[in-house]
Amino acid sequence: MKPMPKPFALPVKKKVDLTSIDPRDTGHFKNKEDVVEETEKLKKEFQELQEKLAAGKKEAILFVFQGMDCSGKDGVIKNVFSGINPQGVYAYSFKTPTAEESQHDFLWRVHSKIPAPGQIVTFNRSYYEDVLITRVHDIITDKEANRRFKHINHFESLLSDNHVKIVKIFLHISKEFQLEKLKSRIEDPSKNWKFDPSDLAERNLWKQYRKSYEDVLEKCSTESPWHVVPSDHRWYRNYAVLSIVVESLRKLHLQEPPANPDLQEYLKELI
Amino acid sequence: MKPMPKPFALPVKKKVDLTSIDPRDTGHFKNKEDVVEETEKLKKEFQELQEKLAAGKKEAILFVFQGMDCSGKDGVIKNVFSGINPQGVYAYSFKTPTAEESQHDFLWRVHSKIPAPGQIVTFNRSYYEDVLITRVHDIITDKEANRRFKHINHFESLLSDNHVKIVKIFLHISKEFQLEKLKSRIEDPSKNWKFDPSDLAERNLWKQYRKSYEDVLEKCSTESPWHVVPSDHRWYRNYAVLSIVVESLRKLHLQEPPANPDLQEYLKELI
Repeated sequence: MKPMPKPFALPVKKKVDLTSIDPRDTGHFKNKEDVVEETEKLKKEFQELQEKLAAGKKEAILFVFQGMDCSGKDGVIKNVFSGINPQGVYAYSFKTPTAEESQHDFLWRVHSKIPAPGQIVTFNRSYYEDVLITRVHDIITDKEANRRFKHINHFESLLSDNHVKIVKIFLHISKEFQLEKLKSRIEDPSKNWKFDPSDLAERNLWKQYRKSYEDVLEKCSTESPWHVVPSDHRWYRNYAVLSIVVESLRKLHLQEPPANPDLQEYLKELI
Repeated sequence: MKPMPKPFALPVKKKVDLTSIDPRDTGHFKNKEDVVEETEKLKKEFQELQEKLAAGKKEAILFVFQGMDCSGKDGVIKNVFSGINPQGVYAYSFKTPTAEESQHDFLWRVHSKIPAPGQIVTFNRSYYEDVLITRVHDIITDKEANRRFKHINHFESLLSDNHVKIVKIFLHISKEFQLEKLKSRIEDPSKNWKFDPSDLAERNLWKQYRKSYEDVLEKCSTESPWHVVPSDHRWYRNYAVLSIVVESLRKLHLQEPPANPDLQEYLKELI
């Protein structure tokens, strides 16, 4: 298996073989201590970039997180986006659609959660579930999946045209890593409440999920690339995602908004 | 002027004289260094309590922040709520109502932002603006203001009955403090973009705002108390708000959710 090179982005419209990417990869780092210093620097830069984004109110950015159960979507969002002004970050999590949501097209419930100018939004699972879990469980046909890929690409192009940058991140874990995680939810009393029996049934569909993911990573790559982050090592996963987040914000070339030209006049009025 | 005693809560339905409360008060602390240690402890406790709240999904909590321009609503929300899992905290800011919002009653736009079980929500300004700025500018009569006080109390009682705890915080500053802040927005180039000329007009209505606030603090105190936080010293304001936030969460007596009784059976299935 080959390592996933920085900046972790997959090429556009190329077939993807996830078994060829090592989920235990840690780049040129050996352990957690190796990334402490750069993590601190990146976190500081992230805070500054977020302030500029919020002040400028021109661009918006959406981070979509996908991955198998136990891949650490919750954990990485908590780790990377904590410490950022909560007035500029909204984190949404998409579960089984509600009765009302099911009545609409699959993009309806996510559309209302897209960031406004100046905002950062994270999706923990997303509209991609509608071409993953639904496909693995034969709720939709391959033909319907292909139609949805097209709709997703159109939707992402609409957002891009409206200054919403979309950054998609797949947290890549091994089946062995998932086993350890599920076991710990049973064996560690403090994690018991996290255990969901339905995760066992989904685990048995590992291969089908992998195939469906590979299809998504290939077919939905035209409007914004997918990033594959090796996630068997939590510390590397956190560092890698933080570096993708900061790099995405850098690329916006954010500027502070201009000052009011009559400032000195107003100063005289102040008593 | 008397100091505002911890836990900063005003008595229910008592006349309030804001000129009698010292905005420069710092309790029994002399300077920032005095609160560093307790702040760290409280922040850690806040993180733990938030995790329990999110896991339990039973209670919800809403923090309403009000105060004159420059009182530091933005700053205190950023300071106190950063570092908390962004998946459990939503910070909303209420500006001039949009065309659609104006078509509805004044509680319509806030109702959709009330926290669901397990969530923390902060309001930077709120439905209280509809009995403050509207009253100071004679957009509503005193009679209408009194009607709205009643509607607010009913609304807060609806939320309380539905396990939403409401914590209202008034950031109390002096007129001199505001002057310094407005000047710095003009004189410090990095703050220029924050300067809004309309703040000068509002400043001239300081007394009317104070009177309207005193009315709100008295009349809308039946369902949940108002807290008055002396805010001329930023470090004390941050510490005081953090301590109110943590104390409010402690009072919920949060428990971790119970574990699935069949855990050991599931362990056998795991391969």
